Formats: sequence, C-alpha cells, structure tokens
Amino acid sequence: MRKLITEFIGTYFLVLTVGLSVLGGGTTAAITAPIAIGVVLMVMVFAGGHISGAHYNPAVTLAVLIRGKISFGDAIGYWVIQFIGAAVAAFTVMFLLADKIPTESALMANSTYGLLAEFLGTLALAYVVLNTATAKGTEGNSFYGLAIGFTVTCMAYALGGFSGGAFNPAVALGVLMMHMANWSDLWVYALGCFGGGLVAAFIFLACNKEDK
Amino acid sequence: MRKLITEFIGTYFLVLTVGLSVLGGGTTAAITAPIAIGVVLMVMVFAGGHISGAHYNPAVTLAVLIRGKISFGDAIGYWVIQFIGAAVAAFTVMFLLADKIPTESALMANSTYGLLAEFLGTLALAYVVLNTATAKGTEGNSFYGLAIGFTVTCMAYALGGFSGGAFNPAVALGVLMMHMANWSDLWVYALGCFGGGLVAAFIFLACNKEDK
Amino acid sequence: MRKLITEFIGTYFLVLTVGLSVLGGGTTAAITAPIAIGVVLMVMVFAGGHISGAHYNPAVTLAVLIRGKISFGDAIGYWVIQFIGAAVAAFTVMFLLADKIPTESALMANSTYGLLAEFLGTLALAYVVLNTATAKGTEGNSFYGLAIGFTVTCMAYALGGFSGGAFNPAVALGVLMMHMANWSDLWVYALGCFGGGLVAAFIFLACNKEDK
Amino acid sequence: MRKLITEFIGTYFLVLTVGLSVLGGGTTAAITAPIAIGVVLMVMVFAGGHISGAHYNPAVTLAVLIRGKISFGDAIGYWVIQFIGAAVAAFTVMFLLADKIPTESALMANSTYGLLAEFLGTLALAYVVLNTATAKGTEGNSFYGLAIGFTVTCMAYALGGFSGGAFNPAVALGVLMMHMANWSDLWVYALGCFGGGLVAAFIFLACNKEDK
Repeated sequence: MRKLITEFIGTYFLVLTVGLSVLGGGTTAAITAPIAIGVVLMVMVFAGGHISGAHYNPAVTLAVLIRGKISFGDAIGYWVIQFIGAAVAAFTVMFLLADKIPTESALMANSTYGLLAEFLGTLALAYVVLNTATAKGTEGNSFYGLAIGFTVTCMAYALGGFSGGAFNPAVALGVLMMHMANWSDLWVYALGCFGGGLVAAFIFLACNKEDK
Repeated sequence: MRKLITEFIGTYFLVLTVGLSVLGGGTTAAITAPIAIGVVLMVMVFAGGHISGAHYNPAVTLAVLIRGKISFGDAIGYWVIQFIGAAVAAFTVMFLLADKIPTESALMANSTYGLLAEFLGTLALAYVVLNTATAKGTEGNSFYGLAIGFTVTCMAYALGGFSGGAFNPAVALGVLMMHMANWSDLWVYALGCFGGGLVAAFIFLACNKEDK
Repeated sequence: MRKLITEFIGTYFLVLTVGLSVLGGGTTAAITAPIAIGVVLMVMVFAGGHISGAHYNPAVTLAVLIRGKISFGDAIGYWVIQFIGAAVAAFTVMFLLADKIPTESALMANSTYGLLAEFLGTLALAYVVLNTATAKGTEGNSFYGLAIGFTVTCMAYALGGFSGGAFNPAVALGVLMMHMANWSDLWVYALGCFGGGLVAAFIFLACNKEDK
Repeated sequence: MRKLITEFIGTYFLVLTVGLSVLGGGTTAAITAPIAIGVVLMVMVFAGGHISGAHYNPAVTLAVLIRGKISFGDAIGYWVIQFIGAAVAAFTVMFLLADKIPTESALMANSTYGLLAEFLGTLALAYVVLNTATAKGTEGNSFYGLAIGFTVTCMAYALGGFSGGAFNPAVALGVLMMHMANWSDLWVYALGCFGGGLVAAFIFLACNKEDK
C-alpha cells in the first residue's frame, strides 16, 4: 500500500509539472519545461526511491520486471496506480489552466520520427534507471535521482520536438488527456515507450550478467 | 542558539534571493528566478543541515514537528527566527531596490487557484524534506539539499503563475512586505502552506510506520 | 564486450544530443544546448562508469591510458567503438533532421582561437575526469558524473563560440559529418583535443605522484 | 607545489569562464553566465578539493585561515598563486576576445550597494565553504562542490546587478583587468570580499564551537 501511495504521488507531481510547465510556461517554456520536468522527476525519485523504487513510469516498471527486481503481481499494481496518478494530475491541470487547454491537437508531423524519438528517449531513461538504481556496481550511490531525472531533461531538449517527449506511457496518457497530443498517436507512445524499456532491459542484462 | 543563527542565515538568504531575483531580474526573471531561488535553498540546506536541520520554512518546521523530529519548544524558536530572518531580508531588498519595489500589488487573480498552488507546492516540498532528510531509508545520503532546493525550482515553474510560488510562510511574509503580493491574500499563503506541510507529514507517517 | 557496448551507447547518446539540441534547438539553442549536452554526458557517465569507466571520448581514453588505468589494447577498442558510436549518432541526426542539416559549413573564423579553445576545454575535461573518477583522494564519491558532464556545459558556454565546443574527437567526427563544422578544420579538433588530454594527464601525474 | 598548481588551474578556469561567458555571451549572458561560472567553480572544486582544498579565492583562503584549517605560510602562497592564475586568465580572455574587451568601464552606479552586494555574496560563499568542506558534521559528503559552485550562481543572479558579482578578490582582479569594472572601485571588492570572508569565519566558529 505504501508503495502504491508513493507511486501515485510521484506520478501525480510528474504529470502535473508536465502539463503546467508546458501549457502555462508561455514563450519561455522551450527553455524551462525540460528543466522543470527533469527536476520534478529527480526530487520525486530521491523522495520515494527507498519506499517504492520510484518508477513513476510503466515502461520503467516493465524494464525492472524483466531485470527481475519487481514481481509481476506488484508490477500490475504499479501500472494501474501510475495511470491513475497521471489521470488525476491531468484533471488538476485542466482545472487550473481551463482556458489554456487546447481544444484539439494536431497529429504528430511524422509518426516515424515520433516513434524513434519515444523509443530512444525511453531506452536512455530505462537504461539509466537500471544502471544507477538497481545495479550492484553502483550500490549505495547518492546520484540515482539526479541521473534519472536529468535523463528526461536532456532527452526532452534533444527529442521533444518530434513527439513531445513523454518517454513514459503514464505521461503520455496525461499528455493525451490534456490535448497536448492527438489520441490517434497513442500507438506511437505505447510502442515507443514500452519498446524502449524492453530493449534497455535486455542491454542491461547483457552487460551485467553476474548481477542477479 | 547556534540553531537559531543557522535558521536566521538560511531564511535571510532565501528571502533575499526571492526578492532580488524576481524584482531585479528584468525580462529574464521568468527563466532565472526559479533557478536562483531553488539553488539558494539547496546551498543553505547543505550548509546548515548538520546544525539546525535547515528548515528555513515554518511549514517545514510544522511537518517535522508532527513527524516527531523537533520538540514543540524548539519549533516555537524556529518559527520566530524564520519570520525575523525573512523580515530583515525584505528590508535589505527594499534598501537595494528602492526604486523597483511596487507601490502596491494586485489581488491574486483567483484565490482558489492560488490556494491550491500553495497547498500542492508546499506538500511536495515538505514531503521531499521528510523523506530525504529525516527518513531511515535515506540516512547518510548526499542529495538532500539538491532534492529539497530543486523542489522549489520545479514547483515555481509549474505553480508560480497562480500564487507567486512561496510554498513557505516566511517567504510569504517577505513577499507581502516587498509588495510582490497583496496583504489581503495573506490567508491564502497561511492556509495553503501550513495545510500542505500538515498533509505531507501525515502521508509520511502513513508510508513510514516503522520509522520512528 | 560489455565495456564496448557501454562505450557505444554513451558516445551514441552524447553525439545524438549534440546534433539534435544544436541543429534542432532553434533560437534558444545558445541557452539550452550546453545544458542538454553536459547533462547527457553526466547521465551516461553515472550509468556506465561502473562497467567501462565511461570515457565516451578518445581524448579522455588517451589521458586514462597515460595515467595507467587502461591497457593499450583496451584503449584501441575504446577508440574504434567511440568513433563508430559517434558516426551512427550522426546518421540518426541526419535522418531525423534531414531538412535542417546545413549543406556546407564555413571554415572556423580563426583557427588559432579554435585550437586554443579545443585545447583548453579538453584539458579541463580530462583533468576533471582523472581527478574525480580515477584518483585515490576522491574514491567512492557520488559526484564524478556531475563534475564530468558539467565541465562540458561550462566550457561550451565559455569556449563554444570559437570552435563549436567539441572537446572530444568522437564528437568532432559527428560534428563534421553533420556539417556543423568544415572538414578542413579537422586538424584543429585532432590537435586541440588530443593535446588537451595529453597535457591533463601529465598535470595529473605531477600532482598525484603517490597515486599509482 | 602540487597544491599551488591546483590552485592555479582552478582560479585560471574560473576567471577564464567569467570573462568569456560574460563578454562573449551576447544577449543571453544574463541567463547563462551565472550558470557557467557556478558550474566551472563546482567542477574545479570537485577536481581539486582533495589536493589543495580548492579555494581559488583569496577571501575563502582568509576564512579557512581564521577557521584554522590552513597555515599562514601556506595562505600566502595560495593568495599569490590565485592572483597570478586570475591575471593569466584575464590575458587569455583579452587575446581571445580582443575586439570585445571594453576600452573603459563606468564606475559602479552606487558603491554602497556594490559594497553590500560583494559583502553578502562572499559571506554566503565562505559560509557554505566552511560548512560543507571543513566541518565535522558534513565530513565525507559528496556535495561540497555542488554547494560551493552554485552559491556563486544564485548570488550572481541576486546581487550581480549591483557589483558585477565577483565575490572573490582574484576574480575582481580579472574583472578589473578585462575592463568589466573600473579600477577606482577596487576598494569595493577588496573591502566587500575580505569583509564577507572574515564575518563568515566568525559565524562558523560561533556555530561550531566543538569543531576544532
């Protein structure tokens, strides 16, 4: 239960910050939103890591499941609560920024680019999570939150222009609910994010064979 | 006494930076002020944590009191000195930026939004403080200042537009003295900030039952 | 093998971010690109340090070789895979930003300045790597990735205007392939970067004589 | 000798970055220079702390001397080499940016404000150095460089408008040589910076009586 509360809080503040810093960020959002989003992920990972492992991301939960650090039963619970947290955050943003929520959003300009962007960004994120938060070689470090959060910052600067830069199916749900992307592009996020998490897990297992 | 000196210095530099970076930050303040404010909180937490616990925030002191890591007597002293530090900082800003202090400030556009913003931001801040600076599961870490300071950075980017983003009753006092907000909105800060600290403490206690 | 995979991934994401954040960063790239690039290096160093040492930079590998922490045979493998990773990243950027890749690029305005810039930036970077990731005096620290990544951030802000700010022969290869610099200036990057790495190694050895 | 080389390198790159990021930073320097300067101090502190203590600042050396962690003889050497490093860096900037060095610089608009700004900024910096890098209560931490470097970032955002934001007599020398301030204001930097370091040392001693 305490793990689910922690996952809810982390995902809620992550998606809240995504919505408010992008839709409410005005002309400087291109500079500030990737910082705000990476930072909120960092602080929530540092705050919740010792309780739930601080995934806040169904693709990360998938990667941690394949890596063998969470049971399938627990993973189901994590996935459900992450999507609930994201939805509640989206409703909060829609309440606070009622007049700034777009009435509809265009399709992604190029869904091949968008798919590649979500795949690469999520791969980087899940790769960093597995190596800094679940590997024996980095046990006891004080940098996991910094590394994990700021992976989203740099990937958002690099890849955000192609897909919006979710790198997280729960964030994608929030983004779709807040009309920051079009529901017809749902498959791009689903395939790109879970695909990236999957590949990251296999890379990790290949590079850390002795680390069970 | 050394604890009170430390709380004074930390709160002083926090409120000083709030005033100078917002009122003196010109056209780029929307980008730079949340960084400057989060950073000054980070460095003051790292510098003073080993002496006073580095609250610099009456709502954080309330949360730490409920969590049982400070006595009621000490908390009173912390509250008094935090407000004094904030007031002295506000006078310093009024001296240095005499010509840039607004003569009066408008009411918050929407006090419901403002209340929700102060509540959510302070909840996040107190939640991060309790988990990174007072929990057994994160004992001995080197990231508490980074996590605590940057919580203000991301919450200011996300929520600053609704309430100014104090997340701290002592900062609110400074903000009101410097005419960055209207005294009629005092209740928004009081209710939002102390409410956020209170709820964060109960969430922490629910999620860390074995951690006394 | 796992070391080479790690070096490939790190160099790939570094050069990917260089290309996308500069060429795709629009009018705010002068602010955001140095942050994005320093941050991606930081997260990849934190993620891969425990496997390969996380060089992602042939000039750093040269410095580590002189310092005696990698064998010559391994260094050859690192160099080859770093250049391959950079090239694959450059192709990815050329695919994603096909319409924004310049058709040709001008010569450096002043190659003496460019040479000095690459030399100083790479010297700083290799000096920080050796002292934070290979020195006895800083063993077990949790800051090496932060220090290493952000060295590129500050050197890019300071020196990027003279040479583009590669500070890394593999990044230079990517930069040349993406037409962000002119192939006639290849010698500037080769001489400046390897020269900076070389000098940093000798400074380190002079200052850490007891540290074998 | 190795301590002096380390102090030279750190002060050199600090002043180099001050000059290049401010004078060469164009219209975005108000945003980027405080980040670049704080970051270069951070990385040089992390890289050199285990050798020389990483002062790179005569006012910090004064504070450390009063606190009793450096001998008077060593302090003399530090002061000399810090000013030499700053001067060599200033010459490098004057070579690289020959056409952007102002031919003359105006007096500070208000030297009382400037003096207060230098005093407060240096006080904060020396206070953070003593508490994060020389105190028993924070021994073995991995955050000292982050705390020290970013103190300059936030103080520069807050106070840079009044005095340029040196907070360091060696940086002040460089700033004066590069015509970023007027030599007639030399006393402001000398009095403000050394005064701030002095007061920080006495505050530290008062708050850490058992810590010899």
